[in-house]
Amino acid sequence: MKKHNFSAGPCILSQEVLEKASKAVVNFNNLDLSLIEISHRSADFVAVMDNATDLVLELLNLKGKGYSALFLQGGASLEFLMVPYNLMKEGGKAAYTDTGAWSSKALKEAKLLGEVDVVASSKDKNYNYIPKGYTIPTDADYFHCTSNNTIYGTQMKKFPKTDGLLVCDMSSDIFSRQLDFSQFDLIYAGAQKNMGPAGATLVVVKDEILGKTGRTIPSMLDYQIHSSKDSMFNTPPVFAVYVSMLTLEWLKEQGGISAIEKLNIAKAALLYNEIDRNPLFEGSAAEEDRSDMNVTFLLTDETKKDTFDKMWKEAGISGINGHRSVGGYRASIYNAMPIESVQVLVDLMKKL
Amino acid sequence: MKKHNFSAGPCILSQEVLEKASKAVVNFNNLDLSLIEISHRSADFVAVMDNATDLVLELLNLKGKGYSALFLQGGASLEFLMVPYNLMKEGGKAAYTDTGAWSSKALKEAKLLGEVDVVASSKDKNYNYIPKGYTIPTDADYFHCTSNNTIYGTQMKKFPKTDGLLVCDMSSDIFSRQLDFSQFDLIYAGAQKNMGPAGATLVVVKDEILGKTGRTIPSMLDYQIHSSKDSMFNTPPVFAVYVSMLTLEWLKEQGGISAIEKLNIAKAALLYNEIDRNPLFEGSAAEEDRSDMNVTFLLTDETKKDTFDKMWKEAGISGINGHRSVGGYRASIYNAMPIESVQVLVDLMKKL
Repeated sequence: MKKHNFSAGPCILSQEVLEKASKAVVNFNNLDLSLIEISHRSADFVAVMDNATDLVLELLNLKGKGYSALFLQGGASLEFLMVPYNLMKEGGKAAYTDTGAWSSKALKEAKLLGEVDVVASSKDKNYNYIPKGYTIPTDADYFHCTSNNTIYGTQMKKFPKTDGLLVCDMSSDIFSRQLDFSQFDLIYAGAQKNMGPAGATLVVVKDEILGKTGRTIPSMLDYQIHSSKDSMFNTPPVFAVYVSMLTLEWLKEQGGISAIEKLNIAKAALLYNEIDRNPLFEGSAAEEDRSDMNVTFLLTDETKKDTFDKMWKEAGISGINGHRSVGGYRASIYNAMPIESVQVLVDLMKKL
Repeated sequence: MKKHNFSAGPCILSQEVLEKASKAVVNFNNLDLSLIEISHRSADFVAVMDNATDLVLELLNLKGKGYSALFLQGGASLEFLMVPYNLMKEGGKAAYTDTGAWSSKALKEAKLLGEVDVVASSKDKNYNYIPKGYTIPTDADYFHCTSNNTIYGTQMKKFPKTDGLLVCDMSSDIFSRQLDFSQFDLIYAGAQKNMGPAGATLVVVKDEILGKTGRTIPSMLDYQIHSSKDSMFNTPPVFAVYVSMLTLEWLKEQGGISAIEKLNIAKAALLYNEIDRNPLFEGSAAEEDRSDMNVTFLLTDETKKDTFDKMWKEAGISGINGHRSVGGYRASIYNAMPIESVQVLVDLMKKL
């Protein structure tokens, strides 16, 4: 029996995608070769990369709007460094919001390259809300935010206007909801939530913003180099790119972002409704900032913990323990999570 | 019928490894979950990482000798930057040999951080030999070399003594031959030749050499950070690490490096003997520097090209075209290549 996988990331992927990926590892495209033992310059793999980047722009409704989609390595953590290298002018500055562990790490790396203005932080309440009403300095080269905070279960519902560039780490909610993606100048995301397996990083960047800082950028950190080589400056993470392509194809078959968003809203509502209805549970994030991807909640009566933990384990649920810095539970209900699995969890909560 | 896969990289892996990897993508360790949808902090994956790093040190005979093995991302190309960041002192310098496209790229990145002394180059003869008899400045922080040059089919047989640190890019011949690996202070290698699929990079580093440059190193480029987190500073490339572990287990079962080296020597001898015997072919690398991994050769009579190309294609051989900068043919005969496949190629050469 397949588990109900609520892991925060790496996380659940479509079963159909996993089966196709498994097959490709022994025989890809009926080449009598594995996907992972062919040249990345072969026509078969170049088609994978082209298809993956094309699907990204199509699904985000950014085709023909001057954006490039890049598949890189190093996760969002390397982007924390690449963003300031590519966008912060020599002697310039950047504005960041601090909404959790990941944005803190992002701004730490940016400080190595210049001035960082932390315009808002929710650290005062263990990051359980999204700051609002802050002012972005007009002379900031860019403003950086994290759209969804996996650990704390918060999500930005609106994005500010800024005179500079708008940069967003969407690692944990990209492809999950409809947004005007053209408001962003650069979006990045580790693959391992809604896009694919760990080992690939997606960068979607407006071409015209690059090459304007006056900095000498090391080759592997330079978006323009990766873009000019169609993400093949060096050997790409072949398997991770392929599984990302399969996942994007699967998403398109589901009806794209508009269709999956409806399902995501329904899944989140099902779970939050039970959390709010049931006196044994309480949500840990501010209501208006609740994430539709990561639902964090606590028991109001800790004596029920052993019983509840036994119940969900017996029901085949996995990956639901909260992060150590928040405690309690975290149900990550990414795109590939069926509503039936959420219902299994809600039924247990009702029974507790 | 499985192809005879002579690709330069990504390249042939053991069929047994591919089958295990394929299975893990649908159900890993009988968890009823895919390898790529579980947390990298789960006991099952932590065991994979521990086993992989342990096997690296065991196979290289470096256990208990003060080395760490790290699994990172970004390929050798990111190491070109990380090596000087971690080993070149502020205001210091490094010595490099230029033995091909990859070492040229390596020294280009190092120049961004300080003085680079190119102590020898074989560029004068399109890199068809390994320079010898050069002097390494006594004040160089480190000396960097590339042990095997995939494109040109050359391989270093001996490594120089140096007063500074000895650093080697072994991307294309690590785990293929017995060396005193303790002569190196830092070894790095993209996984996609003898270790696994593209998407993981191995770094083997002597712990005591780190943290001595006086530089502020960005987190993702800092070996000490990766080492202190057992290669889990951020989400590792789970699949690539797992397949690397399987490949290292497979190598150990074959008898380790000493056993595979014998086979590699036999495969290379079989092919080079035919190249030297057959007047229709000639090797493109200097004889004493010939690689046991990548055998580069040319037709002496170009009118035979169409016939030969037709013959090997019909025989199920793939990936044998030479790199554009050398021309002719390149048979990459990495660890997982059976001698039977080399014999198929040699038989065709005899028949031409």
